[in-house]
Amino acid sequence: MEYVKDPKMIEVKSFEIIQGIIDDIRPGYKFKNEIEEKIIKRCIHTSADFEYLDILKISDTAVDSIINALNNKCIIYTDTNMALSGINKMKLNALGCEYRCLVADERTKELAKEKEITRSMAAVEIAMNEEGKKLFVFGNAPTALYKTIEMVNNGDRVEAIVGAPVGFVGAAESKYELEKTSIPHIVVQGRKGGSNIAAAIMNAILYAM
Amino acid sequence: MEYVKDPKMIEVKSFEIIQGIIDDIRPGYKFKNEIEEKIIKRCIHTSADFEYLDILKISDTAVDSIINALNNKCIIYTDTNMALSGINKMKLNALGCEYRCLVADERTKELAKEKEITRSMAAVEIAMNEEGKKLFVFGNAPTALYKTIEMVNNGDRVEAIVGAPVGFVGAAESKYELEKTSIPHIVVQGRKGGSNIAAAIMNAILYAM
Repeated sequence: MEYVKDPKMIEVKSFEIIQGIIDDIRPGYKFKNEIEEKIIKRCIHTSADFEYLDILKISDTAVDSIINALNNKCIIYTDTNMALSGINKMKLNALGCEYRCLVADERTKELAKEKEITRSMAAVEIAMNEEGKKLFVFGNAPTALYKTIEMVNNGDRVEAIVGAPVGFVGAAESKYELEKTSIPHIVVQGRKGGSNIAAAIMNAILYAM
Repeated sequence: MEYVKDPKMIEVKSFEIIQGIIDDIRPGYKFKNEIEEKIIKRCIHTSADFEYLDILKISDTAVDSIINALNNKCIIYTDTNMALSGINKMKLNALGCEYRCLVADERTKELAKEKEITRSMAAVEIAMNEEGKKLFVFGNAPTALYKTIEMVNNGDRVEAIVGAPVGFVGAAESKYELEKTSIPHIVVQGRKGGSNIAAAIMNAILYAM
């Protein structure tokens, strides 16, 4: 069997093919700007799903806010270990950013039990009480997103949110709520998203920096 | 904001909604059997992508082979840390199965450099040389899948393969090659798949056991 074995070649070729397919299925499709193009194409690269052309939305200040946070040693909080594991750590380490997923943390389990809330919500509460600039990256839990919006409405601060919870109960609604806020955000509208998509969005920005 | 906060309720409700949408968009759609239904629905649950109704294929002996391997303390090798991180470890630990991703292993890096192959391929070589029953779970690297097929053709053994590499260069082709083999396999045909899908397939089987 003959097949391409050079990882760099595979990646370059992949993005060429993605553009070719976009030309084919959506002639005349225009990205708003270079970073939007990079983010959407990386979402397609990780899912082979071209619906991301239509459902990925970036608020005006989102990319600047995320880059600014990353350049100022922010802490990245993800809602799943899977999203965390997909984000490029070499880049984050080089920037001096910290990163963690608190969903399996002992404090999270206790707080969730005590308050009868999801662990995703408890993880948000604990994160919000930590020091430092915060970037929230969600690919799974609508309840984490709702909780964050509630806490920001009550005066807490997050630099930006990548809002990509996937699913059928509350996912679309939670992202719709996020779009109504003034929190800098990148969202996947509707049901789609996922830990892989959340990580892809972060990586697209990290690779563009 | 009012929203559902009970994780068990969210999951049950999600699968009800998924069935409702299938009834709606594909009236009369029949799953071949209960385990296929569980696997496909979990893929949809993790991606909100109903194309999995058509592209997820299970070879005749795949589920039995995977369950048998899991019941016999097999080692699960994934091609990405993200896939590994998505698989339910509590279940695997209870079964006494081991699990690892060798892609960032020092031996893998050395072998890849020495042979000028991808790290995914080198990881397969190293895994194959370890003792024990092996289950390969791929959500990313066509080269890992090609390498595995080559090694099995040369006499090495793997109990089963979850073949879900996503992408535009070699992914579809590598899965097509897998379908032609007699290796027990679950594949996502075409370009789609991903670490999240690979993990979802494994979790559907683990939850059904």
